[in-house]
Amino acid sequence: MQKVNFLVFDNFETLDLFGVVEIFGRLKETYELTFVSLKGGVVTSSQQTPIVTEPISTLDPSGILVVPGGLGTRKLVLDMQWLAHLKELSVQAAYVLTICTGSALLAKTGLIDGKQATSNKRAFDWVMSTNQAVKWQRKARWVVADKYYTSSGVSAGMDMALGFIADQHGKACAQKIAYDIEYVWNDCPDEDFFVGNKEENDEK
Amino acid sequence: MQKVNFLVFDNFETLDLFGVVEIFGRLKETYELTFVSLKGGVVTSSQQTPIVTEPISTLDPSGILVVPGGLGTRKLVLDMQWLAHLKELSVQAAYVLTICTGSALLAKTGLIDGKQATSNKRAFDWVMSTNQAVKWQRKARWVVADKYYTSSGVSAGMDMALGFIADQHGKACAQKIAYDIEYVWNDCPDEDFFVGNKEENDEK
Repeated sequence: MQKVNFLVFDNFETLDLFGVVEIFGRLKETYELTFVSLKGGVVTSSQQTPIVTEPISTLDPSGILVVPGGLGTRKLVLDMQWLAHLKELSVQAAYVLTICTGSALLAKTGLIDGKQATSNKRAFDWVMSTNQAVKWQRKARWVVADKYYTSSGVSAGMDMALGFIADQHGKACAQKIAYDIEYVWNDCPDEDFFVGNKEENDEK
Repeated sequence: MQKVNFLVFDNFETLDLFGVVEIFGRLKETYELTFVSLKGGVVTSSQQTPIVTEPISTLDPSGILVVPGGLGTRKLVLDMQWLAHLKELSVQAAYVLTICTGSALLAKTGLIDGKQATSNKRAFDWVMSTNQAVKWQRKARWVVADKYYTSSGVSAGMDMALGFIADQHGKACAQKIAYDIEYVWNDCPDEDFFVGNKEENDEK
């Protein structure tokens, strides 16, 4: 069993997290899911969802780390203590997957300086401003750079998670999960329907 | 503000619930989200997600009731006490939305006898067996029958929720949400990519 640690915080974006949870959770024999936050206890998403978390002090950080985005990231990019923990967990993790503005948090650790990454198209300018040493890719559904997987906004996390499963277990495995959850997998990481003229910086 | 009550139980399917939560949660000024279970307390999904719920005894049932599916439904279709509560809540609700095998639970209340409904293609034969008085529609992403919205499997709940938002607030509103969460909305209820030869009854 490999650990998948979902690192959450108040005002995380609900579907950023649970789309990815659904996909890893489908491989019950392979992955053990844990929800963690800095101090543990109940953490509430931007969409009023209270979930129970373990404190990161109790965590085995050697598995896969998943970091969602959401409005809560606006405070956390300024929280040096929280970012130090994220950096330590990310260094120790076998893989780090970020969704949406979770990419800004990872960027603030400095660990993806010089690497390609992507994020939410609705908050892209803000994300880029958090660390200009990252090679931000605006047109991408998700990006893989070494052990770091970063995705575009919200639903794109599901496409990335299926891409990760494909990389680890073969594309047929990912396609089977998508089929079972009746999800139309956008399986090309470079195809991005949400970049273009209508783009606005208004993550809510 | 209109109440949206998400009725959960152990071993509910994670994305059945949280795809719909994300979509209602985007309209913060319109909808107030509450998570409820028979007795309240922590309820854990099939994908190991513990969420905090209120007991149904404290509930204002006059709003929208949302019922996910998942393996937990297999016990609940035999639980007359639970079904009696579901029936009472459903009667009082302005609308009832079910996702995936949540449709089997609604079917067991008798409230959709003679009405059209759909459910997960991976468990369709089992769902049909729970109540043959329902006019089950195998090929449908979602179905609307009076105040009852039923959807196909897991991800289809998002398409249905966006369809509900379109019915209530106009299609542009639903399209804006889909755009903001970078979700490719399958907006035709009759178009179903997951029905056909490969179909198996293996909801996990």
